[in-house]
Amino acid sequence: MVTITGYEVHDIRFPTSKQKDGSDAMNLDPDYSAAYVILQTDAGLEGHGLTFTCGRGNEVVCCAIEALAPKLVNKTLDELTADMFATSRVLTGDSQLRWIGPEKGAIHLATGAVNNAIWDLWAKAEKKPMWKLVADMSPEQLVECIDFRYITDVLTKEQAIDMLRKNEPAKKQRIEEMKDTGYPAYVTSIGWLGYSDEKVKQRCADAVAQGWTHFKQKVGGNLEQDIHRARLIREVVGYDAKLMMDANQVWDVPQAIEWMEKLLEFKPLWIEEPTSPDDILGHAAIRKALYPRTGVATGEMIQNRILFKQLFQAKAIDFCQVDACRVGGMSEVLAILLMAAKFGVPVCPHSGGVGLCEYTQHISFIDYIVVSASLENNLLEYADHLHEHFEDPCVVRKGRYMLPSAPGYSITMKRESIEAFEFPKGKMHQQNVH
Amino acid sequence: MVTITGYEVHDIRFPTSKQKDGSDAMNLDPDYSAAYVILQTDAGLEGHGLTFTCGRGNEVVCCAIEALAPKLVNKTLDELTADMFATSRVLTGDSQLRWIGPEKGAIHLATGAVNNAIWDLWAKAEKKPMWKLVADMSPEQLVECIDFRYITDVLTKEQAIDMLRKNEPAKKQRIEEMKDTGYPAYVTSIGWLGYSDEKVKQRCADAVAQGWTHFKQKVGGNLEQDIHRARLIREVVGYDAKLMMDANQVWDVPQAIEWMEKLLEFKPLWIEEPTSPDDILGHAAIRKALYPRTGVATGEMIQNRILFKQLFQAKAIDFCQVDACRVGGMSEVLAILLMAAKFGVPVCPHSGGVGLCEYTQHISFIDYIVVSASLENNLLEYADHLHEHFEDPCVVRKGRYMLPSAPGYSITMKRESIEAFEFPKGKMHQQNVH
Repeated sequence: MVTITGYEVHDIRFPTSKQKDGSDAMNLDPDYSAAYVILQTDAGLEGHGLTFTCGRGNEVVCCAIEALAPKLVNKTLDELTADMFATSRVLTGDSQLRWIGPEKGAIHLATGAVNNAIWDLWAKAEKKPMWKLVADMSPEQLVECIDFRYITDVLTKEQAIDMLRKNEPAKKQRIEEMKDTGYPAYVTSIGWLGYSDEKVKQRCADAVAQGWTHFKQKVGGNLEQDIHRARLIREVVGYDAKLMMDANQVWDVPQAIEWMEKLLEFKPLWIEEPTSPDDILGHAAIRKALYPRTGVATGEMIQNRILFKQLFQAKAIDFCQVDACRVGGMSEVLAILLMAAKFGVPVCPHSGGVGLCEYTQHISFIDYIVVSASLENNLLEYADHLHEHFEDPCVVRKGRYMLPSAPGYSITMKRESIEAFEFPKGKMHQQNVH
Repeated sequence: MVTITGYEVHDIRFPTSKQKDGSDAMNLDPDYSAAYVILQTDAGLEGHGLTFTCGRGNEVVCCAIEALAPKLVNKTLDELTADMFATSRVLTGDSQLRWIGPEKGAIHLATGAVNNAIWDLWAKAEKKPMWKLVADMSPEQLVECIDFRYITDVLTKEQAIDMLRKNEPAKKQRIEEMKDTGYPAYVTSIGWLGYSDEKVKQRCADAVAQGWTHFKQKVGGNLEQDIHRARLIREVVGYDAKLMMDANQVWDVPQAIEWMEKLLEFKPLWIEEPTSPDDILGHAAIRKALYPRTGVATGEMIQNRILFKQLFQAKAIDFCQVDACRVGGMSEVLAILLMAAKFGVPVCPHSGGVGLCEYTQHISFIDYIVVSASLENNLLEYADHLHEHFEDPCVVRKGRYMLPSAPGYSITMKRESIEAFEFPKGKMHQQNVH
């Protein structure tokens, strides 16, 4: 019997803006940060969860976690996991708190961290990696974890069970396959907008040498520079490799179409975040204008399952880049994976930042093993930053994520990192005043 | 010369849940609250702004205000108002803070309060009520206050100028008309879900006696009870009066259609918030099924201009219920009014709560005098709660809002109310521990 006895909230910030890691046309100077929650128990186990942010504002998400976490204190893990649907509703359905969402912005980012901490605790208690906790569920058990509110017009519980049941027979086979081959990835950290040409060239050459075949370029700052850099990357990686482009929301709809017309000669696989993440109809218009010359991708700022539902309904995207903690944690991610599979849209989770690769590897393994059973056009993002701060960091070899085996959601940060990077009092902020 | 020298942030909560004021199918027990900001200046003037919330979570919005307000300190009012577009971008465009939105949830609710405080200060400095500050602008001046990012596919600056120019000749005439007649309103506070039948009956009878002709009923808890209550209200107010229904997001799309089919016999003018505020395509489907037997209304939780744009594009709503502070303050409200006018959708702002009537009267007067120049199907919501806490409360006579004349945005709360209801340390919370 495991009872949650309390919680810790930590505002953790890494001063990444100094190296321009993560810089793009919209995010000029991110300090990769985590609004971090630890669920303490009486059983020597802890549940860890975080939400990734870009620095300023991390304290707002921490404040929102403080509003949610007390709801779990004195609950047993058994009562929380016996009805994960009800547990996720405890976090999203507070009749007063929902006013500041609902299910969006700071309160939903906080929900993501707290919901994931419950899943992490559950997986640790079961001594299973997160992906296996889900893979071992029956279709009926899995759908009981999901809140179908506002999505029953495209997916009912019964339809979800039918979909999952079809994948049951070959599940073990796909697990073995993943153990052998890992999950295909692409690398983002070659092309940050703030990097010099030389640095990009070197990083591309290194990545090719390491076996990477998919590369992402940041665009949208300046058209001539985008063309110059696309040419430079193609020179190093060739045209057998796949090149993705990412505009990080800088364009209006007509501008997105116009700008991309000029970049199509470099054969981008997709244009990511061409406009506001809130603009479903805008993405649909952009896709209509550019398809099939390139695809449309978005997701890292898509706030919840209701927006994803509409992106699918409107045929607005070719790639679903769900984030692990912007939406309400694993509970909501499962709903999104199911809808993506139903609409035949490949899931390529948003990753990078701090801790996102650790999270999303489980999402992609669950998607392949349990939900979509497809690897056609699926790719998981990878960026090689800040993994050293985690107890059980993701392992990537030759452009593929290896199947994790340690219990939990792989998101437990080392105690010394939590302490050193706690903002503003941690020692790394004392040394590096910024 | 007015310079902003500092700011105060107050977490103000009124324990309204005790009387079930404001209760509906989703908001069971709101404590009407305000995340409140005061911009202090060196000129004896203060800029006031608030965002309405339902209680818990108000502290998260206050935390977000603390992240935004420092950006204004040491700025002069002249430099802020000389380029209100740039000023609103200072609040919405911070390259790190936008991660926890962008332009949604707690950070955008905070933006609403801070942006409105700037407008309030500006109007006070000009010694004009808010509506007149805007009404006195030329079309060119007005559009320079607006951020057209992400809406140029439906409305450009040039198109907005053309629209406004057409309304110039009769502007003075409409001001005189409003001085004489006021702006038509409807009353919500007759039908809270938690009220008894007797209380609803009495409130309806009182409202009829006071001259009200439009009434709003909360629905969605229980179909039989909804039918019972609709019948009861119709018995008191008759069928010449207009009855609106409000489900506060409790339904999924198919359920909304099914449920409303059973309530159409009571001739509702609209069904408000039939489903998730994020579901543009869902609202469009519901409207398609029910129109013209009833209309669809939403807006109080519509997060920003980009969602409104799509509601208009998708022909999803018949009434635009923009909120004064959920979106990014008057700067963003102006963009939404212009789009609504372009698509011919009447603006019926969300009001009630605490301070919302004080805000929205200016919005409706601006809409009529400057933007839409229409009163066809326009109605401003009214609820008779908590007005006594404001220095310059709205004045409603015979079901119509009177044109305000005091300088500012009418949102300045009395100092003694701020102090008494400050959470948790104000004396009203000491007496009423909850």
